[in-house]
Amino acid sequence: MDITLKPIGTVHSPLKERERRDASATIAEIVIEPEYAEGLDNLEEFSHVIVIFYLHRSHKPAPLKVHPKLRKDPSPVGVFASRSPDRPNALGKTTVKLLEHRDNILKVQGLDAIDGTPVIDIKPYIPDIDAPPEAKVPLWMRG
Amino acid sequence: MDITLKPIGTVHSPLKERERRDASATIAEIVIEPEYAEGLDNLEEFSHVIVIFYLHRSHKPAPLKVHPKLRKDPSPVGVFASRSPDRPNALGKTTVKLLEHRDNILKVQGLDAIDGTPVIDIKPYIPDIDAPPEAKVPLWMRG
Repeated sequence: MDITLKPIGTVHSPLKERERRDASATIAEIVIEPEYAEGLDNLEEFSHVIVIFYLHRSHKPAPLKVHPKLRKDPSPVGVFASRSPDRPNALGKTTVKLLEHRDNILKVQGLDAIDGTPVIDIKPYIPDIDAPPEAKVPLWMRG
Repeated sequence: MDITLKPIGTVHSPLKERERRDASATIAEIVIEPEYAEGLDNLEEFSHVIVIFYLHRSHKPAPLKVHPKLRKDPSPVGVFASRSPDRPNALGKTTVKLLEHRDNILKVQGLDAIDGTPVIDIKPYIPDIDAPPEAKVPLWMRG
């Protein structure tokens, strides 16, 4: 079964090239297609939103094992245990700070998608369901 | 531009019907296609994982305004300010507790996807990037 999605908008960002970096201070705009603008109503009542986007510059076919940058152990890990942009279904998921919502444009901080990235979905970030308090990650993910 | 995705697995869950409920205690299995099983290596080193899935029973075309169950104000909100399963690109995103990983099967707690749901991606949950500490939600989202 194939699943077909249609982008609802596009990322406009100063990040132009694929490279691993800290985008936590990056400010970008998400321009939503006018036909979906009404669907953004009330979004500004949330401080943060989840952006699902299509990693259009990902490498295909995606490898099943990757080596996370921070990992000192030279053995690779499974791609689903990584946030590599090269994955079987090239979707990115980033929680960003919503700075402004005017009409069909969202100004956000912390989006690590490059300029031109197709946006698939926007969801409100809700700590009660999105942030389990007792979560643990392995040492290698912390550098 | 259309984006085509291919499911990497399927949800096996006691939840059989679409209805809003608290799934925080629900235990389900995600059966990954054997060809992708190697991509799950090391996932068990994380306590929680993010599951991206296709809401195959969502209503089409999706409305742009919806009324969240908890909201007392009778005016609807934009679909992108809600977690409604009926949305322009019917993708769900749930952070679940990873109870067990054996071969190509993940046993998880807290997955609100119904039985038979196609799974699109699995990502490790990393609080440092997935859980901004200062997030705020509107009163109506808290009931």
